[in-house]
Amino acid sequence: MQETTRLAGLIQGRIAERLAEHRSAIDPLGPDALPLIDEATRFLTGGKRLRALFAVLGYRSVRPLQFGEQVPIDASDPASRLLDVAVALEFFHAAALIHDDIVDRSETRRGGPATHRVFTRIHRDAGWRGTPEHFGTAGAILLGDLLQSWADELLQSSCDALEDRAAARATRAHFNRMRTEVAVGQYLDVLEEQQAEFAPHEEQLERSTRLLVYKSAKYSVEAPLLIGAALAGASPDQESALAEFGLPVGVAFQLRDDLLGVFGDEAITGKPTGDDLTEGKRTILVALSRQELPGSQRSVFDDLHGRADLEAESITLLQQTIRESGAVDQVEQMIGRNVELATKGITEAPLAKDAVADLVALAERAARRSF
Amino acid sequence: MQETTRLAGLIQGRIAERLAEHRSAIDPLGPDALPLIDEATRFLTGGKRLRALFAVLGYRSVRPLQFGEQVPIDASDPASRLLDVAVALEFFHAAALIHDDIVDRSETRRGGPATHRVFTRIHRDAGWRGTPEHFGTAGAILLGDLLQSWADELLQSSCDALEDRAAARATRAHFNRMRTEVAVGQYLDVLEEQQAEFAPHEEQLERSTRLLVYKSAKYSVEAPLLIGAALAGASPDQESALAEFGLPVGVAFQLRDDLLGVFGDEAITGKPTGDDLTEGKRTILVALSRQELPGSQRSVFDDLHGRADLEAESITLLQQTIRESGAVDQVEQMIGRNVELATKGITEAPLAKDAVADLVALAERAARRSF
Repeated sequence: MQETTRLAGLIQGRIAERLAEHRSAIDPLGPDALPLIDEATRFLTGGKRLRALFAVLGYRSVRPLQFGEQVPIDASDPASRLLDVAVALEFFHAAALIHDDIVDRSETRRGGPATHRVFTRIHRDAGWRGTPEHFGTAGAILLGDLLQSWADELLQSSCDALEDRAAARATRAHFNRMRTEVAVGQYLDVLEEQQAEFAPHEEQLERSTRLLVYKSAKYSVEAPLLIGAALAGASPDQESALAEFGLPVGVAFQLRDDLLGVFGDEAITGKPTGDDLTEGKRTILVALSRQELPGSQRSVFDDLHGRADLEAESITLLQQTIRESGAVDQVEQMIGRNVELATKGITEAPLAKDAVADLVALAERAARRSF
Repeated sequence: MQETTRLAGLIQGRIAERLAEHRSAIDPLGPDALPLIDEATRFLTGGKRLRALFAVLGYRSVRPLQFGEQVPIDASDPASRLLDVAVALEFFHAAALIHDDIVDRSETRRGGPATHRVFTRIHRDAGWRGTPEHFGTAGAILLGDLLQSWADELLQSSCDALEDRAAARATRAHFNRMRTEVAVGQYLDVLEEQQAEFAPHEEQLERSTRLLVYKSAKYSVEAPLLIGAALAGASPDQESALAEFGLPVGVAFQLRDDLLGVFGDEAITGKPTGDDLTEGKRTILVALSRQELPGSQRSVFDDLHGRADLEAESITLLQQTIRESGAVDQVEQMIGRNVELATKGITEAPLAKDAVADLVALAERAARRSF
């Protein structure tokens, strides 16, 4: 997809321009504040840009749009406004990940150190007083707060420039719902990990599904699609069609993520292999695996799952147990069914045909995670 | 001020209504998420409402407005819109304090436990697995994120309902600048505490002043005034007059806060006595005190200042040293001069006379901290 690569370049350019504005804005506060901008720049250089891409396709499903070679900042230009909304989603996502990595105590992200580790290292290298780790947490909390604000600024300015006030309100409503759902979803996720035991199977599956839907599936695909579509002035029918497509694609995307969280290669995921196992994530994959195990094996499994000090050989043991339970095949089937469900429905929808073709292609890439 | 008490009641009522909406909105995510709303409700029951009051006076300086006995939610009603903006400032402030208490490791706030301590206790009481303190941090990060989003929603919806688009843009611009400045200011504040030593006197005074201005003075008074005024469609002259008034009032307010941080009674501040001393805050008060001390006493001072395990008798010693240095008198004089500077200028400004009278009264209360 040449278009996708070109778009990723435009998004990266716009991210750089917007961060440069923020750098100038905080200049009066002196050079001590610049590590915040430097770390934002580093963090925002990576990433799959999945949300930005879905937002652009959401827009193009409703209204034709071509990006030129260059898209200068200009609120009267629809392409520039859409680019800002796509960047808003990337800023918001960066903020959510930076905070999530504190919450999940993740050391790595996108193949580099997590943001709280970067600030920890700044402290340690400078030999300051106080605790490097605590400074790391503080820096990451505050940078996440800044990025949330900056996301919001971009969304505001794009919406503000719209003639169509109803479209502006709809865009904001989707953005607002997304923000609340993802923060509440993250809270439920961390809560789940604190429970001493797994719930009975049916209840656990229901809980794991709810987490998957709110923390990730809606957030990764449905919300960006609807935000892009609303910006273009989507009709209720168009929004419904995109939601019906987006949710199963998001489910497939997160199920793939769950597989990668257990079996993924660090080079692809940017996280250590088996990260979800040491974090004790109660995913659908794990719930299905446990159900298949005889009682004695299940207690060994539960004892190892979620131990932060898990050694390589225990990780291998858990991986093997999950694979042999048949849960991996079940999850692969679920991914396939969700992609099929999504792509079948959308071909009949009242949406632009060329955008639909791109949506189907992107859905398949999201479900395979081939970025 | 009967008006102030009545307004505080209206703000509390609107906070309750807006939180009730959020409670309904997250209902589909199940009862596990409700502690987030419960804690938001508890936290937002206290507070001085200083920012909300300044926002209302900023508005009334520019355009007459009466609040009725009841102000139902209605975006077409200017009083309802202003109330939402005032609540947006209170939500944002709650979010900033909740995150700041993690950053500063504060145990108490507004006379009760800090939010991260509340989530720590929820974990401990439930006997969950994992670390109660870490769950506390996670819960507080996520609730702060939610409140930031909710603040922004209220600001958006009020601005969106304005006919005057330039006023809407100006209101947002002030809000955006405030958010960036306060987060960067907090970062600089925490950075300052990590430095092994105080800077040379002149430089330290400059650094401490910069922190005071960005982290607090502008945020507490100038920004809320300008946000309220912009919502009412203030002219550039009116904005300048309010900024010239707001900054010195904010400086006086924070200098008072610095005195209370060292000498304040827990019953008034809602924080333990001498909190700023155990946190090692490098305030103007502290910088001025150190400058007066002979070398030997200064090293004793520096050794004790910022020790988290400071005992009551060391706190008393530091308090006595600060008082005897004459710095308290100097700071009191600075407070007086700033209030005078603010109130002198504003009487000639192109602003509504009745609002100016209320502004002067509120400035004096802010500087004395008599709420």
